[in-house]
Amino acid sequence: MSGGAAVARWPDHVSLFARRSGEFRPSPVRAVFEIAMRPGMISLAGGNPDMGVLPHDVIAGMTARILAERGPEVLQYGSGAGIGRLPGLICELMALEGAETTPDRIQVTAGSQAGLDLVTKLFCNPGDVVVAEGPTYVGALGVFGSYEVEVQHVDVDEDGFDPGAVAERIDELRAAGRTVKFVYTVPNFHNPTGVTLSEERRRRLVAVCAERGVLILEDDPYGLLGFDREHRPPSLYSLDPATVIHLGSFSKIFAPGLRIGWIAAVPVVRARLQIAAEAVTIHPSVLGQELAAEYVGSEHWRPALDRAVERYRSRCAAMMGALEEHMPEGVRWTRPAGGFFTWLDLDPAADHEDLLDRAVRHGLVLVPGGACYADGRPTTSLRLAYSAASEQEIAEGVRRLGEVLRG
Amino acid sequence: MSGGAAVARWPDHVSLFARRSGEFRPSPVRAVFEIAMRPGMISLAGGNPDMGVLPHDVIAGMTARILAERGPEVLQYGSGAGIGRLPGLICELMALEGAETTPDRIQVTAGSQAGLDLVTKLFCNPGDVVVAEGPTYVGALGVFGSYEVEVQHVDVDEDGFDPGAVAERIDELRAAGRTVKFVYTVPNFHNPTGVTLSEERRRRLVAVCAERGVLILEDDPYGLLGFDREHRPPSLYSLDPATVIHLGSFSKIFAPGLRIGWIAAVPVVRARLQIAAEAVTIHPSVLGQELAAEYVGSEHWRPALDRAVERYRSRCAAMMGALEEHMPEGVRWTRPAGGFFTWLDLDPAADHEDLLDRAVRHGLVLVPGGACYADGRPTTSLRLAYSAASEQEIAEGVRRLGEVLRG
Repeated sequence: MSGGAAVARWPDHVSLFARRSGEFRPSPVRAVFEIAMRPGMISLAGGNPDMGVLPHDVIAGMTARILAERGPEVLQYGSGAGIGRLPGLICELMALEGAETTPDRIQVTAGSQAGLDLVTKLFCNPGDVVVAEGPTYVGALGVFGSYEVEVQHVDVDEDGFDPGAVAERIDELRAAGRTVKFVYTVPNFHNPTGVTLSEERRRRLVAVCAERGVLILEDDPYGLLGFDREHRPPSLYSLDPATVIHLGSFSKIFAPGLRIGWIAAVPVVRARLQIAAEAVTIHPSVLGQELAAEYVGSEHWRPALDRAVERYRSRCAAMMGALEEHMPEGVRWTRPAGGFFTWLDLDPAADHEDLLDRAVRHGLVLVPGGACYADGRPTTSLRLAYSAASEQEIAEGVRRLGEVLRG
Repeated sequence: MSGGAAVARWPDHVSLFARRSGEFRPSPVRAVFEIAMRPGMISLAGGNPDMGVLPHDVIAGMTARILAERGPEVLQYGSGAGIGRLPGLICELMALEGAETTPDRIQVTAGSQAGLDLVTKLFCNPGDVVVAEGPTYVGALGVFGSYEVEVQHVDVDEDGFDPGAVAERIDELRAAGRTVKFVYTVPNFHNPTGVTLSEERRRRLVAVCAERGVLILEDDPYGLLGFDREHRPPSLYSLDPATVIHLGSFSKIFAPGLRIGWIAAVPVVRARLQIAAEAVTIHPSVLGQELAAEYVGSEHWRPALDRAVERYRSRCAAMMGALEEHMPEGVRWTRPAGGFFTWLDLDPAADHEDLLDRAVRHGLVLVPGGACYADGRPTTSLRLAYSAASEQEIAEGVRRLGEVLRG
């Protein structure tokens, strides 16, 4: 055995990759991350929350106090279920959306993306099918792909997807011998379309899934970002906490950089999720959890959230106005009641093949609609985010989009 | 469709679990976490680093400065590859163990547990085999189980495992039609045995794996915690950066609560790992990464690390002395040259079935050896950690262990 042999036959890494690696897909939002940083570029691509509303000095002081007073505990390994007081606080947040739950049903995760990963890992075998809105959250497609799960889309209209169509799809899939473990949905201010599942459809969706023994995975990062604070449709979880597994996040109501989210699920599921989570990352950042608990539990949180929602409302209005002004004939778009996104359906007769490239040449970054479908179908649609751009940038970005679409 | 139907047929969650969930295994270290907190209990179970050596006021001030000066950036979504300056700093850390690498080969992860998860996800199909030390790190067994990967153990002696035996095992497995993608090893101050793979064995291990086109996954959280700072065997990665994928961690040289680690791998592998990592948690905590970079890049890091290693050395010596004094005839243990652990081989003639229960009744928590084998074989061994207990606790804990073993 000589060192020479090592050099002669070093492994062909790609040939060693697991089968599932063929399904890994880079997020197109992450892919345009670098392009969006170029000078002069306007990005209406990423769904970033506005960090400008946060009281940064307060947060810096809070964090320093946590570390100075309890550093040895906060920097040490923590519990796999989450730090002690966080699940209780999360129950209070869920109550704001009408969901009653208890701390023993809360699994804290390293962001709600991690929750999506863990639920898929716990339930889905390769070849299982998830029924989801069409289009759906691009990051969910990355998760489902990595577990070799097939996604079947059910089209959305202004009230989300139709539970009758969901039921029909499940029944067809089963008749064809396929296994459907859960329906994945973003019911509030849907990513990417901005639409909200109506209350009547929520009740029907829960009923058709419960009848069929199919779970619902409710992904709800935007639920507290409604422009109308008085009227919230009930969370799916509140309608049936056995059939529904709920994903929550501190990313949009506080800070995505901390990567703290949660799963609410019946205890038998939560316990398994904790074991799965410990194998992936032992526990989420203790400092991140402490800061989330401290900040969201403080009197600073709500006013900053109100400021943020006010900004998103104004920016959404600015985008609606700019679309009205600059879009050519044949383009339609959604009118969100909250959240970060609007969705444009383009003239299907025109050629939209190289839409992103053309937009970039005009100084604009956006998410082509095809990225939000598992089958990468040809794009006659696109997502625009208004959450992180100024009203001026929105106006100019949409003006540029008008140029792009007019060729 | 009535609400009644939903109540009548809510899903049987367990029957919906994926096949892999049967392989999820709770870590026995995590399982005794609560017991270890009871008053009067001495824990020699968990491999916690000593947080008492850290300059907590300095760290609090650093974190406050990061948040006050760059809050909007640090709290926002970050790059999937890690924050800009961290990969370069990680290359400097790896150079301390003799490994030359470049930032484009570094994938920052949410702890090195996450690195282990991602590498397994990228390479292993269900039914693939990983060859590992026997015993091995319990947390690795949790990862391999969650991907339905079989672990084949090769026994360790004072110099780690024998590359000839590893080669033979690989060849046997292949002859039986099995697929071996990588050998998993903790070469420095092995968890759980405390032994170190000799330099000669390192060179042979790399050669036999490279010859066979099998990768090596080098898990190295303890490499900088050697009691002899002058003599370090070369990291496996330094011997062959194509055959070896290296896992590193800030947990033992700084703070596990932050969950920041890394993978060093050839670019084609690193790029895929980033896509896989983004699907799991988008990116590790930006605040955690910033703090790790700031602290480990500062003049405070090295003196605190030296203090920590000095403590671990004294505690290890205290444990060796106490074992000498209190262990009955027929018990043997390893003499670690660094790290956190020693491993005891008990008298195989005695009954050790309920060892942990008896220890707990004597006020002592430890990790039974069987937990560190994939096949959960009967325990005639155990792991003791000296990293997080005072010398007094170590002496008393080992005295209690003597009582337990004498019945």
